[in-house]
Amino acid sequence: MNAVNTQCRLAARPVGLPKDSDWQIVDEPVRRLTDGEILVQVEYLSVDPAMRTWMNAGRSYVPPVEIGEVMRAGGIGRVIDSRHGGFAVGDEVYGTFGVQRYAISDGGDVTPVDTSLAPAPVHLGALGISGLTAYFGLLDIGRPQPGQTVVISGAAGSVGSIAGQIARIKGCRVVGIAGGEDKCRWLVEELGFEAAIDYQAGDLRQQLKTHAPKGIDVYFDNVGGETLEAALGRLARGARVVICGAVAQYNSSGELRGPANYMQLLVARASMTGFVVFDYAHRYAEGVALLASWLRSGELRSREQVVHGDVADFPDVLLALFRGDNTGKLVLALGKR
Amino acid sequence: MNAVNTQCRLAARPVGLPKDSDWQIVDEPVRRLTDGEILVQVEYLSVDPAMRTWMNAGRSYVPPVEIGEVMRAGGIGRVIDSRHGGFAVGDEVYGTFGVQRYAISDGGDVTPVDTSLAPAPVHLGALGISGLTAYFGLLDIGRPQPGQTVVISGAAGSVGSIAGQIARIKGCRVVGIAGGEDKCRWLVEELGFEAAIDYQAGDLRQQLKTHAPKGIDVYFDNVGGETLEAALGRLARGARVVICGAVAQYNSSGELRGPANYMQLLVARASMTGFVVFDYAHRYAEGVALLASWLRSGELRSREQVVHGDVADFPDVLLALFRGDNTGKLVLALGKR
Repeated sequence: MNAVNTQCRLAARPVGLPKDSDWQIVDEPVRRLTDGEILVQVEYLSVDPAMRTWMNAGRSYVPPVEIGEVMRAGGIGRVIDSRHGGFAVGDEVYGTFGVQRYAISDGGDVTPVDTSLAPAPVHLGALGISGLTAYFGLLDIGRPQPGQTVVISGAAGSVGSIAGQIARIKGCRVVGIAGGEDKCRWLVEELGFEAAIDYQAGDLRQQLKTHAPKGIDVYFDNVGGETLEAALGRLARGARVVICGAVAQYNSSGELRGPANYMQLLVARASMTGFVVFDYAHRYAEGVALLASWLRSGELRSREQVVHGDVADFPDVLLALFRGDNTGKLVLALGKR
Repeated sequence: MNAVNTQCRLAARPVGLPKDSDWQIVDEPVRRLTDGEILVQVEYLSVDPAMRTWMNAGRSYVPPVEIGEVMRAGGIGRVIDSRHGGFAVGDEVYGTFGVQRYAISDGGDVTPVDTSLAPAPVHLGALGISGLTAYFGLLDIGRPQPGQTVVISGAAGSVGSIAGQIARIKGCRVVGIAGGEDKCRWLVEELGFEAAIDYQAGDLRQQLKTHAPKGIDVYFDNVGGETLEAALGRLARGARVVICGAVAQYNSSGELRGPANYMQLLVARASMTGFVVFDYAHRYAEGVALLASWLRSGELRSREQVVHGDVADFPDVLLALFRGDNTGKLVLALGKR
């Protein structure tokens, strides 16, 4: 085949928010497959806050994307050529295909996607890494008990919105923190959160006091910064703080700041624990089965914001994520305009 | 009796290091006992970093010492008068007697001290709250496994020196962080630490890399600040960070700082947990029994720095603690010069 592959490559390590010059959009011909390979036409790309951390040098939970490499991204696509016994042309598959139109893979990290269960974007959201992150982070690290108060930051995002609903399903009082009235209304009216705090409306600490009068038993943190500090100041005895992300800091070009009141962990006899969803790969089937059953029963609602565009639109879509424009899972759908 | 009680009272909330004007030394007559009370002549006072936190207003794990109140302190003394059935004149007892020469108590928090087991100062150190803090913090929160690398900050202090030895007894590689060559030599040559890092000698991060080449499995933190950050940067996968104290910050008059690199908890899938020894009161007997058996066998060494003085000397002795003058447990012995 003579298809041209458009790729979005990392051209420079960003300082602060990624700029146009940090990216390079490149066209190159798709090479021939060798034995054991598949060619995937990428249809949907997962757009996630963590992507920003992959662009930095230094020790993290995955190696950094190197300068000149295709930007890393999870995606769903269709197998359009195969020299691999495990995959047939026409298969719909998930993998870390990168921000490009065509990906060649040895199938190592590629899994089938059952679109009869839910449309493809849901497999990037509630039934994908976002949903699994919420599931294992909340239940394994947060260990909420029925009746406890669970506070979620970034609550209208892909992970937070699922984590909050799982907590509600488990019988907890769930308080979300999100930016803007619309998101807050969605959390309470559509997703069944007990309350939602608009951090843009000011005095987060007072609002937490109002909505978590007996303290916070589980704090699921996606944002870091001042929100984390406000939550640490309201921990109940024996609280669990789940460190899932720190989006408020990912684009900081100044000195990073840690929670100045971390000694509240001692006062509250609390723990703060980080986790990475990839460690739960051996239990993904369990998570997906439960998430799917909750989706089917209507207990769990999934929302995807699907932006249609090309590979070259990825940098702008990523910036929209950091502006907080999206509600639920942000997905870039390629070539379907 | 017509004894005069000398008390050290909190006169003002200190900003930074406590000044003379933050204290008031007051003499007052000892009042008569009523039924159910004992009169204790205080002989030994425990001098601890945490005392500085009790002098601040605000939420903590114990209520603040109020202005005008006798400064809180654990102590050991002799019952010299008793109208309480559980205590006889002559009994040697431990209690939160405060920084004063005579204390009247209803016996509620008072426990007998067996000086045939060890001299009184040891009951404030290795067999007292310091030893118990080390025991429960290290074993219950840190959960070290044989062969793992345990790093202790404030390692030459009353808690750190015991925590490190317990880790050694449990078969761990123990690395201490302390200030000055003498303390470091003591840790390695006398207490059997694998290595000791003199933080005053510079480049703590490089030294941690040298002495914890495979990463830190348990970090027992008594100091906070830059030491905590350096340790977070070297955590092994699944590490436990035990938050016991933050002496580097207790006298800070500027903005408190949290660990800027706390997201290393995520990278390392690590937890950071605070604890308060008082929660283990129901297990003190277990802890004391084991600590005493290790002392008897010689596996555990206890060191007390006993300063002889009066109640009025307490402010200076506390400052010596914050200068890091002491090695091991700092005790103020009253009226024995």
